[in-house]
Amino acid sequence: MKKHNFYAGPSILPEFTKQKTAEAAVDFAGTGLSVMEVSHRSKEFVAVMDEAVALVKELLKVPEGYSVLFLQGGASLSFLMAPYNLMKSKAAYLVTGSWASKAMKEAKYFGEVVEVASSKDKNFNYIPKAFEVPADADYLHITTNNTIFGTEIKTDLDVPVPMIADMSSDIFSRPIDVAKYDMIYAGAQKNLGPSGATLVIIKDEALDKTGRTIPTMLDFQTHIKNDSMFNTPSTIAVYACLQTLIWLKDKGGVEAMEKINIEKADLLYAELDRNKLFVPTVPAAEDRSRMNVTFVMAEGYEALEKEFNEFATSKGMIGLKGHRSVGGFRASIYNAMPVESVQALIDVMAEFEANH
Amino acid sequence: MKKHNFYAGPSILPEFTKQKTAEAAVDFAGTGLSVMEVSHRSKEFVAVMDEAVALVKELLKVPEGYSVLFLQGGASLSFLMAPYNLMKSKAAYLVTGSWASKAMKEAKYFGEVVEVASSKDKNFNYIPKAFEVPADADYLHITTNNTIFGTEIKTDLDVPVPMIADMSSDIFSRPIDVAKYDMIYAGAQKNLGPSGATLVIIKDEALDKTGRTIPTMLDFQTHIKNDSMFNTPSTIAVYACLQTLIWLKDKGGVEAMEKINIEKADLLYAELDRNKLFVPTVPAAEDRSRMNVTFVMAEGYEALEKEFNEFATSKGMIGLKGHRSVGGFRASIYNAMPVESVQALIDVMAEFEANH
Repeated sequence: MKKHNFYAGPSILPEFTKQKTAEAAVDFAGTGLSVMEVSHRSKEFVAVMDEAVALVKELLKVPEGYSVLFLQGGASLSFLMAPYNLMKSKAAYLVTGSWASKAMKEAKYFGEVVEVASSKDKNFNYIPKAFEVPADADYLHITTNNTIFGTEIKTDLDVPVPMIADMSSDIFSRPIDVAKYDMIYAGAQKNLGPSGATLVIIKDEALDKTGRTIPTMLDFQTHIKNDSMFNTPSTIAVYACLQTLIWLKDKGGVEAMEKINIEKADLLYAELDRNKLFVPTVPAAEDRSRMNVTFVMAEGYEALEKEFNEFATSKGMIGLKGHRSVGGFRASIYNAMPVESVQALIDVMAEFEANH
Repeated sequence: MKKHNFYAGPSILPEFTKQKTAEAAVDFAGTGLSVMEVSHRSKEFVAVMDEAVALVKELLKVPEGYSVLFLQGGASLSFLMAPYNLMKSKAAYLVTGSWASKAMKEAKYFGEVVEVASSKDKNFNYIPKAFEVPADADYLHITTNNTIFGTEIKTDLDVPVPMIADMSSDIFSRPIDVAKYDMIYAGAQKNLGPSGATLVIIKDEALDKTGRTIPTMLDFQTHIKNDSMFNTPSTIAVYACLQTLIWLKDKGGVEAMEKINIEKADLLYAELDRNKLFVPTVPAAEDRSRMNVTFVMAEGYEALEKEFNEFATSKGMIGLKGHRSVGGFRASIYNAMPVESVQALIDVMAEFEANH
């Protein structure tokens, strides 16, 4: 039976990425060795890192003056590295979910933290719009997509200070105006590759302004000066990321991907609005995530939740169970998810409705 | 032509590890999905993490009261996490090479650092023996194997304080008396798996003694409480580590591995002592590493260095070039290196001698 992978992360990857990585796990770049057992300083692996960095710059139109890094530790370590490197004394955070809250927590070691707005009052089911960012804040930190709660900031905000964005779960899903950000970071395990690689895009001139002594591994300059090779990078993870970047370019890049993502999300939200058994958890259409479509059973049908989960699983749908803090279901439909799988889910939802 | 992989790290892995990882890159645990695209909280991946932790405990006879973690960031991030979590005010470091120096540097943020001894005076070509460890030090930090300089501490030292050991390049090469250590850590990319996973073995009761507030991701308690799943672990790297642990157990564990490692090292050092063209860089036999055999051209034969490198490469020997700070050659003969490859190198060295 065909499996449809709706996991929230680690999550669906292109067949191309999987096949190429499987091949390289036994024979990498004609070396006769695995990509896991060649030196990261070998010319073959240095070429992987260089090409991955170049493709990130090309696909996201990264302007001059920014460095692109492949690090470890996930977004969670970047929560700490961001203020360590970029917060002089005051930072602003927009709290749109659990990850945003965790990011904000780490900034508190370094000075005054201003929560400009929070959607916690409604279990993070919307994106706050009317908020003021202090003009003297060093940056505004945002989480562009909220995997758990199914909301997304789908445009680059206009604010009076530079932004830092955790784009872990929607990077490469649309074009970005990188110039508005001092730092963009993303754990790879949604639209880029396997967990274990962390992409960081950082504005060089934003660094070295804090007067703070930064431990070696937490200092972005360490990694910039060493082309992400101060310590051994996660070689197989970076290799897999490169394959996804190659696939993405072949598909037409982030501009083409945005169109497909809008099409997939529109299809699924339309079914949720039509189907009497389900309701999306995010009321405002403009706040709904194109990456994670969260929904629950409609009023009066709550008792069918377990049955639908089993029904969908029996039809090959994997990873639909919602996060415990929202309940219900979550269909994660990242870049690598084909329209056919979204349609298959819609068919299953319609069939389930017909059965009841 | 058969390739013999002498890279210092990332380095040779068992065929079993490579094959299993390649298979799981397309179909993991019968899910029909890649190990790179299943949730780390899926029952299939949780089983991987649990089995990996259990095998580490079994193979190294880890006593009760220790936690085993699979983290990210390599030994380089552990250089910082060790003192952050375990140094109250005074720590002792034995400086046997570049990595030991880097580890010591990070401790200086946290209090008084005592360098108990250093072999820097002879470019780290020996292990200091007569040194005193202050009885009031919180720990003695050692680097058991010095990849660059080819020296190794092959027994568990007797010192008056607990030890912290960076065992990145010789863990699982011999039995260890874990009880002598408050913490053992190792980047995976030598005897365990691909880069991107970091093994940490830590004594639970040694934690929470510093009175220090530790950022979330740098706090070992964060990872202990969440079974290495506070944030997404590097799933494919942990999967590959598990395969090596299964392979290692099948080979007879660390006791059997130590015998084979002694045999391999003895063979190669005997050739170095015999062959007139080469000399090992570490004079004292007891200090010579079983993992990284470093050697240079003998006096009068220096001009042949480039020629030998080309000759060995033409015979399928890969990664023999020594680190720039030592020069010459380095044959890394980790657990996964078969005796046959060591013999192949010896044959090449003898043939080269016969040609000159």
